[in-house]
Amino acid sequence: MQNTVTACLIVIGNEILSGRTQEKNLSHLALKLNEVGIQLREARVIPDIEATIIATINACRAKFDYVFTTGGIGPTHDDITSAAIARAFGVTLHRHPDAEKALRAHYSAADINEARLKMADVPFGATLIPNAVSTAPGFCIGNVYVMAGVPRIMQAMLDAIIPLLNGGATMLSISITTNLPEGKIAAGLTEIQNRYTDIDIGSYPMYERGTLSTTLVLRSPNAAKNEAARAEIEAMIAACGGLVVASPGA
Amino acid sequence: MQNTVTACLIVIGNEILSGRTQEKNLSHLALKLNEVGIQLREARVIPDIEATIIATINACRAKFDYVFTTGGIGPTHDDITSAAIARAFGVTLHRHPDAEKALRAHYSAADINEARLKMADVPFGATLIPNAVSTAPGFCIGNVYVMAGVPRIMQAMLDAIIPLLNGGATMLSISITTNLPEGKIAAGLTEIQNRYTDIDIGSYPMYERGTLSTTLVLRSPNAAKNEAARAEIEAMIAACGGLVVASPGA
Repeated sequence: MQNTVTACLIVIGNEILSGRTQEKNLSHLALKLNEVGIQLREARVIPDIEATIIATINACRAKFDYVFTTGGIGPTHDDITSAAIARAFGVTLHRHPDAEKALRAHYSAADINEARLKMADVPFGATLIPNAVSTAPGFCIGNVYVMAGVPRIMQAMLDAIIPLLNGGATMLSISITTNLPEGKIAAGLTEIQNRYTDIDIGSYPMYERGTLSTTLVLRSPNAAKNEAARAEIEAMIAACGGLVVASPGA
Repeated sequence: MQNTVTACLIVIGNEILSGRTQEKNLSHLALKLNEVGIQLREARVIPDIEATIIATINACRAKFDYVFTTGGIGPTHDDITSAAIARAFGVTLHRHPDAEKALRAHYSAADINEARLKMADVPFGATLIPNAVSTAPGFCIGNVYVMAGVPRIMQAMLDAIIPLLNGGATMLSISITTNLPEGKIAAGLTEIQNRYTDIDIGSYPMYERGTLSTTLVLRSPNAAKNEAARAEIEAMIAACGGLVVASPGA
């Protein structure tokens, strides 16, 4: 059996915590990591405060195999992620020559300025993560991968990172939707979960047009076991008088 | 000057970390709390694992004035939030008589069962939070407010909680959108931020139809200071050759 490889996402940005901006990178990251056998195990949303960033990075990089961050690597005064991560690793910021070259090629001589060149400053020893959208790179240092917060740029950076990661067992999932509410199948489901201890069975209620229904999601790296549990769950739903309805897929 | 009152949100649920379900409660909570003078300072998304819930609850309730949780209070085996929070507080779970009575009134005699009655189990000493949507209550113990994960139910519970909270200074915000990209105004913005140290000025780039623009958000409890900073920022944008365009409001 393969190792479990874990990851944590740290979302850095006052705009998420103020409610101004809806967080949109977590689910994309989780799905992409799962494809290469990495399980997202925690996410934290923290403000643009240096001490908080340093403490969170250092707690999470010790606890998880991979740490991903989004936000705070632009040209303005509130973009403090790179400097904070340098401090978390006890290294200085330096202007990366390749990043500076790329930015000078991207902007005209009239448009390049110190604020934009700040986006070439990365912790000493960091490796650049290319940005196919707007040039200013992310970076990787140790097990920490630092990406932009704008979803389109984050996704482009993640596409560049994914092939470099070492995953473990890939989670396979099956989704079963029934017209029964959770409360009708809870006892039967507990009994099945107790026998399939290595499958994570999640139960998610839905309300649509005043009607309750439930989607069950089975997750484990073992396709055969998932299928065996699916057969038992479908039989249990039938025994409770329910139907298995078309499923949107997990 | 009023105190700053802080809060943390703990989102409990494997379905968020797997990427299956998009988190939708954070921004709603942040905006509602801000209306009553409470600043959301951190959010954590954690799995349905008892030890993780206990450790996270205990770390956060010591650190923030208020802690809010969403998820894991339904009838199925994966709904372990109430039991974990009882353990975090070192108390037992008990079947709350008012909650049991409400559930027995809501379900017919044929439909009530042990799984549904489990939703009446709360930590000893907890106060119920009413659920106007589907009866099964949330609860409050100490400074921890435990709500459902389904957004419609979470919002109903939050509406019941909000009048009970003691807030501090309310953050007032102003939003300014310019047609200039961040890199053109970064230096001027830093200079203004350095003089308005008690205003949190955030700078958020946008891409629309291939064009970069920037929204600046000024946040502080002081309306007059916000307006003074707004005037300076608008003058700075004009001096950089930019326009202040219609703003969607912060």
